[in-house]
Amino acid sequence: MSDLKKLTFVTGNSNKLKEVVAILSNGVVPPSDGLYKVGNYEISNISVDLEEVQGTIDEVTICKAKKAAEILGGPVLVEDTSLAFTAFNDLPGPYIKWFVNGVGLQGLNNLLYCYEDKSAHAICTFGYCAGPGEPVLLFQGKTKGNIVPPRGHTGFGWDAVFEPIGYKETYAEMDKEVKNKISHRFKALDKLRDYLLSN
Amino acid sequence: MSDLKKLTFVTGNSNKLKEVVAILSNGVVPPSDGLYKVGNYEISNISVDLEEVQGTIDEVTICKAKKAAEILGGPVLVEDTSLAFTAFNDLPGPYIKWFVNGVGLQGLNNLLYCYEDKSAHAICTFGYCAGPGEPVLLFQGKTKGNIVPPRGHTGFGWDAVFEPIGYKETYAEMDKEVKNKISHRFKALDKLRDYLLSN
Repeated sequence: MSDLKKLTFVTGNSNKLKEVVAILSNGVVPPSDGLYKVGNYEISNISVDLEEVQGTIDEVTICKAKKAAEILGGPVLVEDTSLAFTAFNDLPGPYIKWFVNGVGLQGLNNLLYCYEDKSAHAICTFGYCAGPGEPVLLFQGKTKGNIVPPRGHTGFGWDAVFEPIGYKETYAEMDKEVKNKISHRFKALDKLRDYLLSN
Repeated sequence: MSDLKKLTFVTGNSNKLKEVVAILSNGVVPPSDGLYKVGNYEISNISVDLEEVQGTIDEVTICKAKKAAEILGGPVLVEDTSLAFTAFNDLPGPYIKWFVNGVGLQGLNNLLYCYEDKSAHAICTFGYCAGPGEPVLLFQGKTKGNIVPPRGHTGFGWDAVFEPIGYKETYAEMDKEVKNKISHRFKALDKLRDYLLSN
């Protein structure tokens, strides 16, 4: 049996780690020792205050992964989320968290008032970097939907205003299991899992 | 006579340097040797590709100045511009350049369609850093105005949609001399000049 490789997911939120590993391990309940295993990787999490740069979502994620690998001196995983409004040429994009805080959920609808096209892409990007100076691999998932007035639980970012194409519920109204099967995050993690299981 | 101290203004745009030094030197025509002098400082410019971080305008400027000082190994000056919409809790703020490109000038008006309050602050922040590891001094100027449908020459950022309070012209319609007396940039440079002349 090969040695397990250590991989650090940089997030201050240990619930996020649980969610990520649950998807990565196809729903298998993680062990109670706090060490999550996927393929030959043993994944833990750590909270590091990482600057985020301005730029495209790829640039933001690459830069974050490189900095994390430099600080931690080993393999890291980082995540970035973007909400790209078609009418705005993909903005707010990586700045969406600032807009959720600044204008609120109804505000996101207000911004689009003048535009017939309410469509948006939810984009999740995981960045993997094997160590300082190493290139960053990106695993990206996209889900298309429309921006709608908030419905459902409003506690999780912009979930309440994003209604995926083909569904009558917002992310916030959906069963977690249904959401996990179609979400931008799931699609990105699906690609990441393929990589982790074959490397 | 004391030795001149070298100060590098980090901008790829040599016209920007001219404009900055013209304001700093109270309109005195700069010499033809390409070396601009203000007080005991000799100012030149250089183009360096600097990442900009996400954050408040102070954070963005401080980070940019620190990086520039590290790269150039000496005293540097950097500049950042923000357009803060009151209705949006000061967004787009430091991300305004992305929005000018992404939604256009009429688009900036569209974003505000649902809001009665069209007011905004134009904010210019110069950051001075004496060298690697040194603290960053900020010199900030603010001008309050309203966001209006574009009028005047549209070539310079968002000048055509910003109408300063007390004026019936947008920045883009104003005489350059009038604009230079009330602009956010002038106010920031006024503070910077005071510093350069007394240090």
